[in-house]
Amino acid sequence: MTGTADETQGYDVFATRCPSRQTLETVTGRWGALTLAALVDGPLRFGALRRRVDGVSEKMLSQTLKLLEADGLLTRTDHGTAPPMVDYALTDPGALVADAVVRLVDAVYAVQPAVQQARNSA
Amino acid sequence: MTGTADETQGYDVFATRCPSRQTLETVTGRWGALTLAALVDGPLRFGALRRRVDGVSEKMLSQTLKLLEADGLLTRTDHGTAPPMVDYALTDPGALVADAVVRLVDAVYAVQPAVQQARNSA
Repeated sequence: MTGTADETQGYDVFATRCPSRQTLETVTGRWGALTLAALVDGPLRFGALRRRVDGVSEKMLSQTLKLLEADGLLTRTDHGTAPPMVDYALTDPGALVADAVVRLVDAVYAVQPAVQQARNSA
Repeated sequence: MTGTADETQGYDVFATRCPSRQTLETVTGRWGALTLAALVDGPLRFGALRRRVDGVSEKMLSQTLKLLEADGLLTRTDHGTAPPMVDYALTDPGALVADAVVRLVDAVYAVQPAVQQARNSA
C-alpha cells in the first residue's frame, strides 16, 4: 500500500481527472507551498506575506492567494479601515495542509546536506 | 516558531538564495511530488513510472528524474540487458522526502471534501 490512494473517498492524486490532483498542484505549485507555510503562525497582511515569501511578485502572490481562497484553504478579511487592512488566514483545512507542508520543509532541511553533496559531486 | 527555518543548519526555505529553496522546488515542482510518491513502494522502470504519473510526458518525466537524481534523491540503475532495463529507486534521503510528500497527499485527501464544497460555492 502506498498511502497515496484514498480508497475510502475514492480520490487518487495520480489521476489527472481526480479533483485532488488539482488541489495537490495548488498547494505545491510555484508559490502555494511557501504561502501556506508562511501563514502557519497566524494571519498576515499582503505586504508582510510578500516580504516573507522572498522572490514572489505582487501578481503571483495575488494569484496564489486567490487560488487558495477559492479552494477554501484560506480566508481574506478586509477590515474596512482606511488605510485598508486586509488579513489572510488559514482555515482549518488550510491549517491541516499547511502543517503537512511544514513537515515536508523539515524533511527538505534534513536531507539538504546529502543533496548538496550530490550536487557537488555531479 | 514556524518550524520552517532550521536554526541548527541555517537553512531557510523562504530565502531565494538558500539551497534548500531549490530542493523544495524540485520535490514539489510540477511533477516532482508525484514522481517521488510513485516510488515509495519500490523501484519502477521508466514506462511503469510514466503510466503511474498520469499525464506526464516522456520529456517532462525524463527532466524530473534527472533533477531528482542530481539531488541524490533517487538512483538510476541500468541493468545492461537487452532489451534495456533501467530502474529508478529512492535513496534514503529520497525516501524521507517521499514519505513527507505522501503525508501531504494524505492531507489533501482529508481536506478534499471541504475543498470541493468551497469550489462549488465560489
